[in-house]
Amino acid sequence: MTSLSISTYPGIPEIQAQDDLATIIGDVIQASAEGIAAGDILVVTSKIVSKAEGRQVAATDLDEAISTETVRVVASRPHPGGVTQIVENRQGLILAAAGVDNSNTPDGTVLLLPDDPDASAQALCTVLRTRFEVPIGIIISDTLGRAWREGQTDTAIGAAGVQVFEDYRGTEDSFGNILSASTAAVADEIAGAGDLVKRKVSGRPVALVRGLQDLVLTDDELSDPAHTAKSLIRPSENDMFRLGSKEAYAQGFEDGHVTARASES
Amino acid sequence: MTSLSISTYPGIPEIQAQDDLATIIGDVIQASAEGIAAGDILVVTSKIVSKAEGRQVAATDLDEAISTETVRVVASRPHPGGVTQIVENRQGLILAAAGVDNSNTPDGTVLLLPDDPDASAQALCTVLRTRFEVPIGIIISDTLGRAWREGQTDTAIGAAGVQVFEDYRGTEDSFGNILSASTAAVADEIAGAGDLVKRKVSGRPVALVRGLQDLVLTDDELSDPAHTAKSLIRPSENDMFRLGSKEAYAQGFEDGHVTARASES
Repeated sequence: MTSLSISTYPGIPEIQAQDDLATIIGDVIQASAEGIAAGDILVVTSKIVSKAEGRQVAATDLDEAISTETVRVVASRPHPGGVTQIVENRQGLILAAAGVDNSNTPDGTVLLLPDDPDASAQALCTVLRTRFEVPIGIIISDTLGRAWREGQTDTAIGAAGVQVFEDYRGTEDSFGNILSASTAAVADEIAGAGDLVKRKVSGRPVALVRGLQDLVLTDDELSDPAHTAKSLIRPSENDMFRLGSKEAYAQGFEDGHVTARASES
Repeated sequence: MTSLSISTYPGIPEIQAQDDLATIIGDVIQASAEGIAAGDILVVTSKIVSKAEGRQVAATDLDEAISTETVRVVASRPHPGGVTQIVENRQGLILAAAGVDNSNTPDGTVLLLPDDPDASAQALCTVLRTRFEVPIGIIISDTLGRAWREGQTDTAIGAAGVQVFEDYRGTEDSFGNILSASTAAVADEIAGAGDLVKRKVSGRPVALVRGLQDLVLTDDELSDPAHTAKSLIRPSENDMFRLGSKEAYAQGFEDGHVTARASES
């Protein structure tokens, strides 16, 4: 009994600005052996969404492009090859390089993240649900680093038609204890699972995840803001790591110094 | 063409202290329709490893059990229900409650993480490779929170027989740019993918991931320390979030105050 299968669609062409991504993906699905079925979830690499949305921009200076996308600097660390900066970007994500990508782009250009990845997911979801007349979910993925752990994992930055959390809070375990703090970020797990298949062959930016129909929403639930990738971003008032340790220490040192001086005079 | 399938083995009994977990899992595999094949990866929930290793301990006071497992406090935040503490625990993981679990345990007891999850994975891997005479991988998973993002994802805390990273550094993209910062933490993505299936039915603590044989190591590579879940933990000298912002600020304030006072006198 296979509970979950993940595959990729072959034949997705290199995407260009102004391409109609939903139609291109729909045509590929229609021509494929896998097709699409009720309860399927598509994991779409953000890069092709960005390209279709014309987010490839001229940039002679990568650092300048990164500054433009940065809302605030969270932490920075010099290393032999330059400086790693972790920032909050325009989409509210905390990540390196503000999500500006200069891989897989022609010289002199960089690729920005989709302006509103949840809206991009919603648009794809609506067109594909209408065309194939089945409830499906869309997750737009990007590759993000993490605090405390090495390496990156693919993460959900846009979502539509799919539950992003599975909430166990308030349910009882088999010993009758209430599970108080268990909310699985299933959309992030799905994005990572999609990467496991997409990474294997280049030119496969869309993964088909089949077997999680319990997470796929009805048409009526589609516009519920609880089901967005934005809701996966922790609000700043609950964020215990809003600044890097070095940066927070420096701010504290400055304030402590000023306070002591003020009380002396 | 399905590239990856994930299923669970039925019939794994409630695990008790001193149970021979490798034999129990081996027997379940042998009796199953799925069986096991070269290149398969098993994702094993840490809870059953802990139980077999006798890590269920009497604890009348959960907070006391958490302190015992804590090496240092990283951050804490009061909230209406108590205080959330993020700590570094004995296994080097940064997580809430030091990995001490009081769900699915009888009243008056808590469950600690396996003492050395990589060693636990190695032991399972060796026994199962010998019994079934195929190269397989083992990932021991636990549910961890993240900085900046809501919800938890299943993460690799122990690994054996499987690459934990896929390293793209130094490879070229299709435009000839060198990819400098791309190391996928595939073991964490696999742990999360396993959760997507295990979560669906209770009492399914082992997921079978089939289709990632390129990540499974040969017998000769089994003891290479590069392929451990420990290597997924960022070394403290590279960790920009070693302390919570509030804690680092307070330390800085104190030091700034003392420095100013000293320069006055």
